[in-house]
Amino acid sequence: VSARLINGRSARSIDSDDRGLQYGDGLFETISCVSGRPRWLALHLERLQRGLARLRIAFDQLAALRCEIEALAGGEERCIIKVIVTRGTATRRGYAPSGDETATRIVSRHPWPEQARSPAQFRVGVAAVCLSGSPILAGLKHLNRLEQVMAQMECADRQLAEVLMLTATRQLISGSMSNVFLVTEEGLITPDLTECGVEGVMRRVVLESAASAGVRVAIRPVWLQELPAVREAFVTNVRLGVQTVDSLDGRALPDAGFAERLRRLIDAHTH
Amino acid sequence: VSARLINGRSARSIDSDDRGLQYGDGLFETISCVSGRPRWLALHLERLQRGLARLRIAFDQLAALRCEIEALAGGEERCIIKVIVTRGTATRRGYAPSGDETATRIVSRHPWPEQARSPAQFRVGVAAVCLSGSPILAGLKHLNRLEQVMAQMECADRQLAEVLMLTATRQLISGSMSNVFLVTEEGLITPDLTECGVEGVMRRVVLESAASAGVRVAIRPVWLQELPAVREAFVTNVRLGVQTVDSLDGRALPDAGFAERLRRLIDAHTH
Repeated sequence: VSARLINGRSARSIDSDDRGLQYGDGLFETISCVSGRPRWLALHLERLQRGLARLRIAFDQLAALRCEIEALAGGEERCIIKVIVTRGTATRRGYAPSGDETATRIVSRHPWPEQARSPAQFRVGVAAVCLSGSPILAGLKHLNRLEQVMAQMECADRQLAEVLMLTATRQLISGSMSNVFLVTEEGLITPDLTECGVEGVMRRVVLESAASAGVRVAIRPVWLQELPAVREAFVTNVRLGVQTVDSLDGRALPDAGFAERLRRLIDAHTH
Repeated sequence: VSARLINGRSARSIDSDDRGLQYGDGLFETISCVSGRPRWLALHLERLQRGLARLRIAFDQLAALRCEIEALAGGEERCIIKVIVTRGTATRRGYAPSGDETATRIVSRHPWPEQARSPAQFRVGVAAVCLSGSPILAGLKHLNRLEQVMAQMECADRQLAEVLMLTATRQLISGSMSNVFLVTEEGLITPDLTECGVEGVMRRVVLESAASAGVRVAIRPVWLQELPAVREAFVTNVRLGVQTVDSLDGRALPDAGFAERLRRLIDAHTH
């Protein structure tokens, strides 16, 4: 962490009674910043607001939050800004909010990860750790991320770049830290996220770029047994952008054309 | 909070980069203390250790933690001690732990809740908010508690004392802050928790007391459609003990005999 603002002030710590720690009662955003500016900030703030409404967290500091993000990004060639908004310090014990909490906002700046962390070959497998379906939380980037933590441990143990996560009924949802797109004879497909998963900002950028270029993307439930028919796959998040998957479950994928085209489209739109 | 120790020192705040806040990457225990002593401390610490092993959190401060709990409980007629152990401050960005984190432990003392919070009639309904199944996390009292937070908001909206939570497939798991026991013609039943739910310390005390008295308890999957046949129900946690349910989904329950018998058994064993 190279800089941190907590409720607008330079600080490093929060009350240990914060409901964000006690219950994961909050949301976060991970924002890619280039040439001093946060990319896709409007989309990040929109998802954040959708999450706040869903969790019924009162938050009237959006304008201040936006300023803080822009201030921390300013002057940096390339960095990551992480935002956390929690329901705030507990005003009583127990899961039920009292309703009189004041939301906590944390904005922190992190160096852009070194290339060393992105392997030459982007090898992807299917995680043994399952994602649990929770329609009430689906789509949100909330702070309950133990399944992703467990999946990332598995990913490291298996020396993979990313693992794909399934529900208990073998429905493919996403990577552990990314969304996923697949190409089969049917064309470009990405999993439906109404049961669980995070609606990534990069996923949305890809979907909008594809739509504007007339590239059809099917958003539908995808199942484990469809993976052998996949000819191309890529994962997306704001750090990786559109990342081609070189091998899936040990099988080298022959194609990378959709990812290349989408990268070009997105680069063209972002300037 | 009337007293708090963080890593053994009197403190109020933690690093906002703690993985407990970032991802809910940790566990907690809520301990009932009477006459200066934590009750069922061995069971709490055993569950905590099971959780730490499952999450692969290295923690070598169990003896210190035990001392801190006993120190905060000492001299208090009646209080709640809450313990949180997280994987510690992140040493790099991202879900994957680096493996060189140092666990954070937080021990806080809270006043025993006033009677006002326990209504005269303990009315229970079935929550619309579902529990998601996650076998890898089932049984643990981990920090990912947004579903319980949402369920408790629903509980407050509906002016109920507790809500029972189902999986998406209508399997009954527990209350939002308690375990549940039901009595039908079959006898005493409590839901199987291999798919999800928390293995409560009070649930275990009830099961062990029942076993020692020769009262048979069936631990099996329980389904929503079984509720109309229920004649008695009680919920358990270390604060409520064995709490009789007066009405379930608007229907007054005729019996309370099992709960009374178990309360007597537990009181007899605890002295």
